[in-house]
Amino acid sequence: MIETKGFAAERAGAALAPFAFSRRDPRPQDVVIDISHCGVCHTDIHFVRNDFGMSLYPMVPGHEIVGTVTAVGSGVTKFKAGDRVGVGCLVDSCRECESCRHGLEQYCQKGFVLTYSGLEKDGTTVTQGGYSTKIVVDEAFVLSVPAGLAVERVAPLLCAGITTYSPLRRWKVGAGHRLAVVGLGGLGHMAVKLGVSFGAEVTVLSTSPSKKADAISLGAHDFVVTTDTADGARAANRFDFILDTLSAVHDYNTYLAMLKTEGTLVCLGLPPEPIQVPPAALVFTGRCVAGSLIGGLPQTQEMLNYCGEHDIMADVEVIPMDRINEAYERMLRSDVKYRFVIDLASLR
Amino acid sequence: MIETKGFAAERAGAALAPFAFSRRDPRPQDVVIDISHCGVCHTDIHFVRNDFGMSLYPMVPGHEIVGTVTAVGSGVTKFKAGDRVGVGCLVDSCRECESCRHGLEQYCQKGFVLTYSGLEKDGTTVTQGGYSTKIVVDEAFVLSVPAGLAVERVAPLLCAGITTYSPLRRWKVGAGHRLAVVGLGGLGHMAVKLGVSFGAEVTVLSTSPSKKADAISLGAHDFVVTTDTADGARAANRFDFILDTLSAVHDYNTYLAMLKTEGTLVCLGLPPEPIQVPPAALVFTGRCVAGSLIGGLPQTQEMLNYCGEHDIMADVEVIPMDRINEAYERMLRSDVKYRFVIDLASLR
Repeated sequence: MIETKGFAAERAGAALAPFAFSRRDPRPQDVVIDISHCGVCHTDIHFVRNDFGMSLYPMVPGHEIVGTVTAVGSGVTKFKAGDRVGVGCLVDSCRECESCRHGLEQYCQKGFVLTYSGLEKDGTTVTQGGYSTKIVVDEAFVLSVPAGLAVERVAPLLCAGITTYSPLRRWKVGAGHRLAVVGLGGLGHMAVKLGVSFGAEVTVLSTSPSKKADAISLGAHDFVVTTDTADGARAANRFDFILDTLSAVHDYNTYLAMLKTEGTLVCLGLPPEPIQVPPAALVFTGRCVAGSLIGGLPQTQEMLNYCGEHDIMADVEVIPMDRINEAYERMLRSDVKYRFVIDLASLR
Repeated sequence: MIETKGFAAERAGAALAPFAFSRRDPRPQDVVIDISHCGVCHTDIHFVRNDFGMSLYPMVPGHEIVGTVTAVGSGVTKFKAGDRVGVGCLVDSCRECESCRHGLEQYCQKGFVLTYSGLEKDGTTVTQGGYSTKIVVDEAFVLSVPAGLAVERVAPLLCAGITTYSPLRRWKVGAGHRLAVVGLGGLGHMAVKLGVSFGAEVTVLSTSPSKKADAISLGAHDFVVTTDTADGARAANRFDFILDTLSAVHDYNTYLAMLKTEGTLVCLGLPPEPIQVPPAALVFTGRCVAGSLIGGLPQTQEMLNYCGEHDIMADVEVIPMDRINEAYERMLRSDVKYRFVIDLASLR
């Protein structure tokens, strides 16, 4: 077994604290990774607090993992010691269902294995995430990180990056399209960068006029204050696509009304109340409401390669491990531009 | 003015009764049509009863119109006397907005002009529909009816046909796709015929086991009784697309659960309560809920041409004009296979 240091929540809502545990010895398909950095996703806070009612404790969160391979199992073909690699939200799936066969492991019909607070396919082993010094993952769920990118700024691509890249590619968003992004957080700031890179005209929709300068500096072409009547009117029937990253309860009809004929609202967040939309709001406009979850392994690799070629990275604030609880408090106040990333050297 | 005989509702919910009125003399762009047949759409009943709160009386319903050109205005280029033509749900639109410029007049952002119970662009003239002997329509909103099809069976294509053709084409439904159709009425039976013609594997979803034989005889490959637990389970995660033609209140989640990963539920009906869907039902599956309304003029002509080439027509029961009230009663009991069509010769 591989001794590992981490930070864990012992029970729902507990502050994270030092936690020693073991990783499995590598099986033939496994890659052993020394974690250098791990991004801090808002989902981590939901899981620590058991907001989805499915948390397992003690819990080492973290699913935006980058590091260096230190050893590989006898059957590993894709990686070798010294390679720079990443691990995202999944560490396994059934690999047999129609979704998995199409490289859409995030929609595995038998249920994928979460990187943390999940159960391995043995049905008993609890997975532990990237707020730790080491991780052991099947090579099929390990990504290659392109050279030339600052590793701490790559970490958030493994969740925030692929979660926005995937729908933009699925709907072929690009030149000639008007894309709006709702919510300028970890996901939203990546959606702006990627949308601009793909050639779309990108608008940030926000309730806070104070975010305009940030939106523009990230590359957005326009900014609309949705609570301002005149500005909101300007956005009516305007966008081909809206990426909605909000996880708080909100009225989807506000954004639907900003879509062009046959436009698509893509929901990425999981507010705790149903989407409620009058049928006429879709039928009389040909509009769509769609959902999208992270991305499959092949597309995650494609995204990393694309970001490597186009020098696209997250904007991050690097913190030592022992400041994680303070970081959570700041995230709850939206006080981060735009992702905290833990430097795991602080834990060694 | 052109003297015209029709059947009209004098007020909300009134029985339809004989009604004499005038059509305008043809303007330069107008086509004068002797109506031979008019389909009876469920929407007609909604409008007669003022279910949408926008009805204008006296009202001559009818928007599935076929007939023969008897005269044309001086500027008409597309039609001449003797041509067999059709008119659908729209008789005008702004012709300037982005939707109109893209041939999506049904999504006109300034509001299209309904074939009946609408206001012409002068803002005062009330339109009257096809339960009548004659109609005068701008050539831009007149369709050419291909030769070789039984005219009474073509009439329903102008609404039921295009309403199902349009989404099947928008989402490129065809070979390799599993398509489900909810509701085996006027729209549903056309969706089955068109879906089969496009090469999809078509399943009818119904609460009534009694409809199975009809579904199969229309060409459907499969039939699922959604209220039967075992049969319903067979439909889980099964379809690429579902066309939902229901206009009664129903739970959309039942059908969402039958979609494959990244599948699309297209709503065609207008139930009086909101669509309610948990965000997770879309996000964890990549599924979409979309709306679609009839079709634009270019696509309606494309549909008629396609039906002409492939010998696709509605299944109808032809009635004389004076049996319209009885027909409405039977439609409310779903007692029609699958569309009543009025023979206007009965009114001359």
